[in-house]
Amino acid sequence: MYELGVVYRNIERAERAAADGLAALGSATVHEAMGRVGLLKPYMRPIYPGRQVSGTAVTVLLQPGDNWMMHVVAEQIRPGDVVVAAVTSECTDGYFGDLLATSFQARGARALVIDAGVRDVRTLQEMDFPVWSRAVSSRGTIKATLGSVNIPVVCAGMWVSPGDVIVADDDGVVCVPRARAVATFEAAQKRESFEGEKRARLASGVLGLDMYQMREPLARAGLRYID
Amino acid sequence: MYELGVVYRNIERAERAAADGLAALGSATVHEAMGRVGLLKPYMRPIYPGRQVSGTAVTVLLQPGDNWMMHVVAEQIRPGDVVVAAVTSECTDGYFGDLLATSFQARGARALVIDAGVRDVRTLQEMDFPVWSRAVSSRGTIKATLGSVNIPVVCAGMWVSPGDVIVADDDGVVCVPRARAVATFEAAQKRESFEGEKRARLASGVLGLDMYQMREPLARAGLRYID
Amino acid sequence: MYELGVVYRNIERAERAAADGLAALGSATVHEAMGRVGLLKPYMRPIYPGRQVSGTAVTVLLQPGDNWMMHVVAEQIRPGDVVVAAVTSECTDGYFGDLLATSFQARGARALVIDAGVRDVRTLQEMDFPVWSRAVSSRGTIKATLGSVNIPVVCAGMWVSPGDVIVADDDGVVCVPRARAVATFEAAQKRESFEGEKRARLASGVLGLDMYQMREPLARAGLRYID
Amino acid sequence: MYELGVVYRNIERAERAAADGLAALGSATVHEAMGRVGLLKPYMRPIYPGRQVSGTAVTVLLQPGDNWMMHVVAEQIRPGDVVVAAVTSECTDGYFGDLLATSFQARGARALVIDAGVRDVRTLQEMDFPVWSRAVSSRGTIKATLGSVNIPVVCAGMWVSPGDVIVADDDGVVCVPRARAVATFEAAQKRESFEGEKRARLASGVLGLDMYQMREPLARAGLRYID
Amino acid sequence: MYELGVVYRNIERAERAAADGLAALGSATVHEAMGRVGLLKPYMRPIYPGRQVSGTAVTVLLQPGDNWMMHVVAEQIRPGDVVVAAVTSECTDGYFGDLLATSFQARGARALVIDAGVRDVRTLQEMDFPVWSRAVSSRGTIKATLGSVNIPVVCAGMWVSPGDVIVADDDGVVCVPRARAVATFEAAQKRESFEGEKRARLASGVLGLDMYQMREPLARAGLRYID
Amino acid sequence: MYELGVVYRNIERAERAAADGLAALGSATVHEAMGRVGLLKPYMRPIYPGRQVSGTAVTVLLQPGDNWMMHVVAEQIRPGDVVVAAVTSECTDGYFGDLLATSFQARGARALVIDAGVRDVRTLQEMDFPVWSRAVSSRGTIKATLGSVNIPVVCAGMWVSPGDVIVADDDGVVCVPRARAVATFEAAQKRESFEGEKRARLASGVLGLDMYQMREPLARAGLRYID
Repeated sequence: MYELGVVYRNIERAERAAADGLAALGSATVHEAMGRVGLLKPYMRPIYPGRQVSGTAVTVLLQPGDNWMMHVVAEQIRPGDVVVAAVTSECTDGYFGDLLATSFQARGARALVIDAGVRDVRTLQEMDFPVWSRAVSSRGTIKATLGSVNIPVVCAGMWVSPGDVIVADDDGVVCVPRARAVATFEAAQKRESFEGEKRARLASGVLGLDMYQMREPLARAGLRYID
Repeated sequence: MYELGVVYRNIERAERAAADGLAALGSATVHEAMGRVGLLKPYMRPIYPGRQVSGTAVTVLLQPGDNWMMHVVAEQIRPGDVVVAAVTSECTDGYFGDLLATSFQARGARALVIDAGVRDVRTLQEMDFPVWSRAVSSRGTIKATLGSVNIPVVCAGMWVSPGDVIVADDDGVVCVPRARAVATFEAAQKRESFEGEKRARLASGVLGLDMYQMREPLARAGLRYID
Repeated sequence: MYELGVVYRNIERAERAAADGLAALGSATVHEAMGRVGLLKPYMRPIYPGRQVSGTAVTVLLQPGDNWMMHVVAEQIRPGDVVVAAVTSECTDGYFGDLLATSFQARGARALVIDAGVRDVRTLQEMDFPVWSRAVSSRGTIKATLGSVNIPVVCAGMWVSPGDVIVADDDGVVCVPRARAVATFEAAQKRESFEGEKRARLASGVLGLDMYQMREPLARAGLRYID
Repeated sequence: MYELGVVYRNIERAERAAADGLAALGSATVHEAMGRVGLLKPYMRPIYPGRQVSGTAVTVLLQPGDNWMMHVVAEQIRPGDVVVAAVTSECTDGYFGDLLATSFQARGARALVIDAGVRDVRTLQEMDFPVWSRAVSSRGTIKATLGSVNIPVVCAGMWVSPGDVIVADDDGVVCVPRARAVATFEAAQKRESFEGEKRARLASGVLGLDMYQMREPLARAGLRYID
Repeated sequence: MYELGVVYRNIERAERAAADGLAALGSATVHEAMGRVGLLKPYMRPIYPGRQVSGTAVTVLLQPGDNWMMHVVAEQIRPGDVVVAAVTSECTDGYFGDLLATSFQARGARALVIDAGVRDVRTLQEMDFPVWSRAVSSRGTIKATLGSVNIPVVCAGMWVSPGDVIVADDDGVVCVPRARAVATFEAAQKRESFEGEKRARLASGVLGLDMYQMREPLARAGLRYID
Repeated sequence: MYELGVVYRNIERAERAAADGLAALGSATVHEAMGRVGLLKPYMRPIYPGRQVSGTAVTVLLQPGDNWMMHVVAEQIRPGDVVVAAVTSECTDGYFGDLLATSFQARGARALVIDAGVRDVRTLQEMDFPVWSRAVSSRGTIKATLGSVNIPVVCAGMWVSPGDVIVADDDGVVCVPRARAVATFEAAQKRESFEGEKRARLASGVLGLDMYQMREPLARAGLRYID
């Protein structure tokens, strides 16, 4: 349940090296490294393909059709942050466009993750400012009702607290809790280090059935081959 | 982000009189009394109409297509509880039917709120066990992977912590945080106490325009009447 | 495109006998009588089953999450009207509950058709005030932005002008343009008059294939029977 | 892939006692007895609650917005059949109303399962003719293009062959292949026979954890209890 | 409500300079310049990114699964037109492919906006013929039932009259009524002229909070900063 | 209805020249050549644009959230195959990523068609391994429950048997039954051969109305031109 009309100015951000390093590992590996949790719903899509980012979350809770708090959150951005925007009701309006992106970028934001719509997508791509959103829409918003900044929010089905790490790429968006950022970074790196060898073996024609020793458990589960 | 494989046995439940009393006020009034927050997404619908309940949340996090933890949460139910079930991925399978309902009811549960599917809906109605769900489905589940019990979960877009108060009726489901249950109960009662008089005036033909003194602000906003 | 901030007070309503008489014919027959046009999208569902109404449209254009204009339209209702509410953006919030229903009913409204959400559905049923909507939701609204009253609106994909006839039942909602109300009423009655005889013949075991003389055109289209 | 423009007149229907007896067991039990397969997608809902039926499938493949073949399939219905209707493209139009229902009922059909829309739902309920559909819609159809009757079809994601058994209730719709009807009937009866005792034990307060001996496997999977 | 089976040959098109000039301003700016109305639903997406067009609407009303009228509308196209296609029922079939695009392009059409599906999308991109649609689908259509050409239609939730101006880009599609084209063009240009300076200030680090003087109204609304 | 826990090793594949040649004709032409059937639902989209493939189907039935059988199907792939994956319940989890793609590619698979989600989409594009799916998702899967390999499956609403031909491009995915592959190939080539001339005539300004001789049937259907 949300506290409305408040801006928390001092938030504790995740350890920087982990927050920065997780980008290279990607959302799928990080999600696995956490035990297959932390993923925002897959309707969150990049507005253009090819960007892979991570950063520390500053959060904003918006009211439906109202982007007033986007200007409030801009002031709380520090270099290396990713803005995570939730709405108190389902909405696809275009809360964010090139002007706000200019401001966010000037403050050092790396990306926006928003459970609503955005616009000016061509300009955003030209600016190289990545956004993950549920919709693209020209529909504008008003500035009438308070939300909050830097409170924990539910964004696309996932709980995001200020200072958590956000990892986003073409596969989706993952949230890593601040307290688990370093451990997740290490686990994900370990996971990643095995991938190269596996890929080489599979490319040479070795089957996963053999590489992962699945034949015996499959037989035990009752799998039958019929010629 | 979720901790997996744990069951918290000792949770602090919201004050009992508030948890019980909120049912009579209904989800819409309670939602307004909290400042228009706390509502689960409106795709959560009662499987049959006419029930209005409240109670203290015990929570369960489920894996997709796997209802193993439903049996684990049953043991943690105390009289007056409402079970709140979330899934780590979107799923409409039927996690809950008449046998589990019999068990839940025997433990004193008042209802189930589940962001997935249920089945045996006719029997559930005959048993007078209310359920709010996203789907009805005969599709069965397996018992293979751990989730957790009594951790905070995101259910249908809302953050629910164990011990919070759940209010559910034909209009939807609202979560009242434990710490705010008493204050919300008082605010909602106050809100409710004005409704009778308002209704009488409106029934007599008085317009909301006059009763709420809207004519002047509407004119100021620029409303024009054209004959 | 919508004109905002205006209330048209004097609208021309469809001929009363037709507007009243169309209810008995039902949405499916009326829709057919108009040449299979006029139907609102099928996501518009009654909040409780069993009501069949018709009446003259008064229209209201709402802003997302804002029900201010619902109070403005109340004043424009005359006995025999059906309120048709559209929103400038997709929204499922609960714009309408028992207090507004009391006011609408006191003014003589027969029903509400709204391309958004409503709440207090149990009370609305007890009041016998029928509503067709896209959603049920406790989520409340604000009163901040002007829309309009009695301008033509698009409601659930259909163009509705003030004074048109609305026919609504368990099958859906149809809009009959004011200028065609009388002709449609006559055509629908004629259509209806043949139904009883057809039903009797079909009940006796006569096939539609024979009753409608379809065997020859089906054969011509190439239908083959295989034993 | 579908063969168009054909009507198979002689189909082999499932064994009658199994086809009739499966109704009493319900879609959930039958689905489990088949190994959790055979269920149509859960968007298939009864147009009114409370009916539980089974019968042998006669199938019809329809073209979008065209119900010509519904008249052709009527002739192929025998007492104890359930008509299963698929469409070559997604469509919510109202293919079926009270006249066709009168004809189907006169031929001995027990129900309609249609991956599209129907209308006249109030009359259908008064006639006690049950329908499971994806939508309700007044929108009418034309009679211009051939489909087929009694070919295998995909209906709501499930493969249905003529003569298979359909089991439908408030939980959904299951298809039992003709060749497996008798075995499934026996397996489902066996399954059902254990339910009464289980329910009694759960009602007395025994936990599923103990009744199903889950504590040990849960511990082995790593479940931890925290006080 | 729609008149069927008619083709209006002489329509009055919006003033040419405005119809042509609006493209450069884009859908978001034009939508704002009209008071945040006129936008088609955001499910209307370009079949390939990067095109920004405007032009005068010629409209066509189609029947579900039937593209006969697409050939009729082709004859009514004049250079500078955008074809706007609506369907009398929801449909995702592929009404339009490379042959029709060749014909439309030969007649001088600038784009197609269709509340249904299209196909041959790769060829359409090679031809540089832009389309905004709700779906892409290989599914073909028949030619059996009349619709109409150059009547007002509801396309993706917006009322479009023949001769109105359509503005479409990667953010969506906006309809500007013919009578308001010139005024909207002027208002949008004015709006646009302020954007450069604003962007420069935001890029330099000035906050929207200060640039738009929001701090005082936010404080008045009750916003609290917590350190 | 599905047989679970079996792998058919010897399947009969469609004639190779037809299976290979259909790619060049594209999904829309092939779908038309079969009489407008065979298309998978249009929610199946390429994860990146521009690929056009055909090949012989090897099929796999998966359980929700469980990709165990993907490793089993890998062994059954032969050069020129397309893997077609269905799930027993609706699921958007990421069943397939770069490691499995490496293995599939090493076995000679041309593409994957999956009625679920995939991940590592950027790497898949770099590998030039095309996928058509209903979703993109980082969400991982478990390996706990058997499905089957090379049984007939329903994938995205279409019946696909092992050995059928799959044709996929930016417009969608079509299934050609094995027994009809050669005839369909010939029919589609014939269809294609007329396209060039038609395109040239339309490009020169000839109208479809004249080229297809539609004026007379349109007039007969009642089309009226109004000046």
